[in-house]
Amino acid sequence: MRKWNGWGYVGEEPAPERIEGWRKTTGALAGVRAEDYRPPVPLEHIPLPPSRLGSDSAGGLPGLAGFRGRIVATPYERALHAAGRSTGDLIRLRTGTNLRFPDAVAYPADEDDLLRLLEYAERRRVALIPTGGGSSVVGGVEPDVPPTYTGVVSVDLRDLEGVVAIDRTSRRARVRAGTLGPDLEDALRREGLAFRFYPQSYACSTVGGWIATRAGGHFATLHGKIDTAVEALRVVTARGRIETREVPQSASGPDGKAWFIGSEGALGVITEAVLRLQVPPARKRATGFRFAGFAEGLEAVRRIVQAGIYPPVLRLLDEYEAMVAFWGRAGMEPGAFLHLGFEVADPDGERAVTVAWEEATRLCRAAGGREVPPAGVQAWREGFVQQPYWRDVMIDHGLVVDTLETATAWSRAAALREAVREALFRRMERWSPVAMVLCRVTHAYPDGCSLYFTFVLKPPREAMWAAWRDVQQAGLEAFLAHGATLSHHHGTGRDFAPFFEREHGPGHVAALRALKAAFDPAGVLNPGVFFPT
Amino acid sequence: MRKWNGWGYVGEEPAPERIEGWRKTTGALAGVRAEDYRPPVPLEHIPLPPSRLGSDSAGGLPGLAGFRGRIVATPYERALHAAGRSTGDLIRLRTGTNLRFPDAVAYPADEDDLLRLLEYAERRRVALIPTGGGSSVVGGVEPDVPPTYTGVVSVDLRDLEGVVAIDRTSRRARVRAGTLGPDLEDALRREGLAFRFYPQSYACSTVGGWIATRAGGHFATLHGKIDTAVEALRVVTARGRIETREVPQSASGPDGKAWFIGSEGALGVITEAVLRLQVPPARKRATGFRFAGFAEGLEAVRRIVQAGIYPPVLRLLDEYEAMVAFWGRAGMEPGAFLHLGFEVADPDGERAVTVAWEEATRLCRAAGGREVPPAGVQAWREGFVQQPYWRDVMIDHGLVVDTLETATAWSRAAALREAVREALFRRMERWSPVAMVLCRVTHAYPDGCSLYFTFVLKPPREAMWAAWRDVQQAGLEAFLAHGATLSHHHGTGRDFAPFFEREHGPGHVAALRALKAAFDPAGVLNPGVFFPT
Repeated sequence: MRKWNGWGYVGEEPAPERIEGWRKTTGALAGVRAEDYRPPVPLEHIPLPPSRLGSDSAGGLPGLAGFRGRIVATPYERALHAAGRSTGDLIRLRTGTNLRFPDAVAYPADEDDLLRLLEYAERRRVALIPTGGGSSVVGGVEPDVPPTYTGVVSVDLRDLEGVVAIDRTSRRARVRAGTLGPDLEDALRREGLAFRFYPQSYACSTVGGWIATRAGGHFATLHGKIDTAVEALRVVTARGRIETREVPQSASGPDGKAWFIGSEGALGVITEAVLRLQVPPARKRATGFRFAGFAEGLEAVRRIVQAGIYPPVLRLLDEYEAMVAFWGRAGMEPGAFLHLGFEVADPDGERAVTVAWEEATRLCRAAGGREVPPAGVQAWREGFVQQPYWRDVMIDHGLVVDTLETATAWSRAAALREAVREALFRRMERWSPVAMVLCRVTHAYPDGCSLYFTFVLKPPREAMWAAWRDVQQAGLEAFLAHGATLSHHHGTGRDFAPFFEREHGPGHVAALRALKAAFDPAGVLNPGVFFPT
Repeated sequence: MRKWNGWGYVGEEPAPERIEGWRKTTGALAGVRAEDYRPPVPLEHIPLPPSRLGSDSAGGLPGLAGFRGRIVATPYERALHAAGRSTGDLIRLRTGTNLRFPDAVAYPADEDDLLRLLEYAERRRVALIPTGGGSSVVGGVEPDVPPTYTGVVSVDLRDLEGVVAIDRTSRRARVRAGTLGPDLEDALRREGLAFRFYPQSYACSTVGGWIATRAGGHFATLHGKIDTAVEALRVVTARGRIETREVPQSASGPDGKAWFIGSEGALGVITEAVLRLQVPPARKRATGFRFAGFAEGLEAVRRIVQAGIYPPVLRLLDEYEAMVAFWGRAGMEPGAFLHLGFEVADPDGERAVTVAWEEATRLCRAAGGREVPPAGVQAWREGFVQQPYWRDVMIDHGLVVDTLETATAWSRAAALREAVREALFRRMERWSPVAMVLCRVTHAYPDGCSLYFTFVLKPPREAMWAAWRDVQQAGLEAFLAHGATLSHHHGTGRDFAPFFEREHGPGHVAALRALKAAFDPAGVLNPGVFFPT
């Protein structure tokens, strides 16, 4: 069961004794004391306004005819869809403040149900918020629309799930949009195949959500972001279905898939995708390298990818992130840290992996890296999936912890990190005596890389949300000022919408508005993303 | 000097004795006799209508103010821009029939000149045909517009040329759109860099043209089509300039570059691109494999790319194309033929290339391939760049030779080849006692490949163009009927426009029209591509 006010699933949060341990170690680093803890507000204490659309706990949506799926409007479902899972969202959810609830949640059973919903929404001027796992960290699924709409329905795609067809020869599969990460991998594993797309939200995000937000995952330096893993799409728009050809490449006009990859539910609802598959790895090999500083680590990463070597894991922690990651671990000297991981898919390809491994490690040493024992390496990976659960714990202790990520060219990466650190610190000073900024490179390309920043502050309790928003905006301002992008793999949602035109310019925004007018002329699909309302 | 009525440059055509030799060998194969030869009609015999826009041989475009570049309307310039370089275009150019001429040719000196031209075109309802090298084989640069326009100006981007800036660290360069292939490589070579993008039109096509048509080149299995080689774009539209961020990746909404890559001059004029570069190869290694049939060769190619091996050259000729390619060569048995070529960019990477070479050749043998001596391999490459010059010779001898290319999934490739062969032969029977269909795989991806068909027929002299068009359409019909795309790397232009909506559906076309309305509301940019007029 999904938590309505926290990350992930009930029962998967850290055990009390681990929380106790955390308070004494990294928690203490950030100034946390046991008495800082405030329990989250229970659902029954949250006042939910009545549904403006006439739905009640028994479900139903008056005026919507022929719908075959489920309409639910229980307090749990409305609260579950009240927000995404950004730090700001969780602060609001756990303190029960400033929340907006959908008037109903629709689980369409098929594409015709989506067409029925769109017709209903246009007729009654109701906003539809498409959602998959609901794990947006940029306000992409918030049911926050202007009062010109008569109501808001969250359209949860979870019932449109499963693998429709597998083409082993072409290593691809047609998959429904509501399929969760683990369900996808389970279905493919039975056929000896894999997708190997592991965003941190893997367990509670969907194929459709990944595509709608241009997501990236854990092994993305080898396999690429979702952008390149999609061969074809099916989309239901307010003006009918769109289906792109199942072809590996084309020069038949501009790529129509690209209109929907990253469209965040504002142009149409992605219902199916043909995904390019992998084979599961037979063996893995991982190590780590310590560098004196971030610049040396960047140099190693750049030389590796520019040599045409794409290790599945190539993640560089700056000296601050490495310090936190390895806090209290014996024998770790200060400096940046590179996680390097290779996989052997086909045993016949083992020699190629061995050669790539040797060359990558040689390049690390040439850039001044020193190999460290693999023991320190495993720790990071374990924390990766669990980390969002810890964020809830931190919020309950009054800590604001969030991430911002971007991408830039190699020639600008080191300066960008400095500028963003500076901007975040300067803003955090306004709010908090405690302030940390960590940075890692999560994805590398021949021409540049992504930079993933974590910031931590401990503002006054009542100012947590405002401080979070203020510091986040300082980070985004710094990205834009230094030529970087607002997001490398999280999307932009409502939270970044005020900055969207500053990144892209008015011509780009006009074109995106034109596409929206073509597919959603009444503007009922996810109003507020891209274009602030 | 560019030929106004043929491929490429004056003086680079085959020497008379080579033409004589051709007549006796492959020409004879296709039923060519010496008396079939008809010389092309000279320019002075072509009646050019007066410019409707008031331009004359002295240049000038009345009503266009402040233009800093060149306006030319000499017979040579108007004829040079009268058509692209498809076989149908060349039949018309060499026989002087059914030609349309631009009323003037504009060579803008900068982006402001483009804005001036767009303002002039909107005000006077003049169509603008952006062009780079003019080598479109799909009617992409034909000055053929409806009579509702008061005239047509070809906008030749050749004066917007050169490398603006090189970022060695990030291996990228900002390049002006009118830069020709050889000029780009020369400029990069001086800095120890390369782009290594080699379409057959390399010597007479431009960076902007490659991007506008989603072109692909000779080494594209390793380096990808132009789609993936563009980091950022600058475009002048009728509603101002668009400049995308110089970032390696993003999740800040849909990818705006993708609106213009493949937009064929109908949405805006690409003026600059930031290109992702390579380093020039230090060493090359090539061989060839003979397979009993096309299916075995396909299997080898598929297994190579699915093993994550991307040789720069991985080109499979079917048994018919191999027969023609190696005609008269001793010791070549019937069957399909795979060209396999590797490059060592950095000597430090030599071992990786050696391992990839060994694994690729092992996969070839496992699929039943037999390695043949490299002597037979070189021949193909020499012919590649020269081949379009030969097409002029063939047309002058009454032969219709053209190509059609597409892409499909691996699971459909063999059946698609059969279906297209069948469709082409059936249609050629209507026109010609001589008929050949050759096929090769030019680009391979993990999920599929491109198929490149060459067809040869010898219709009655006066029916050459009609026969060409009829057979071409049969091929396109077969592509669409079997789920393939209209083009993998040539674009669609005016010639394929009648088929465009059948590939993509009305929703896609409506969205593309919406983008056009946003960027070019008066519809002055390249009218007739995508949407038949």
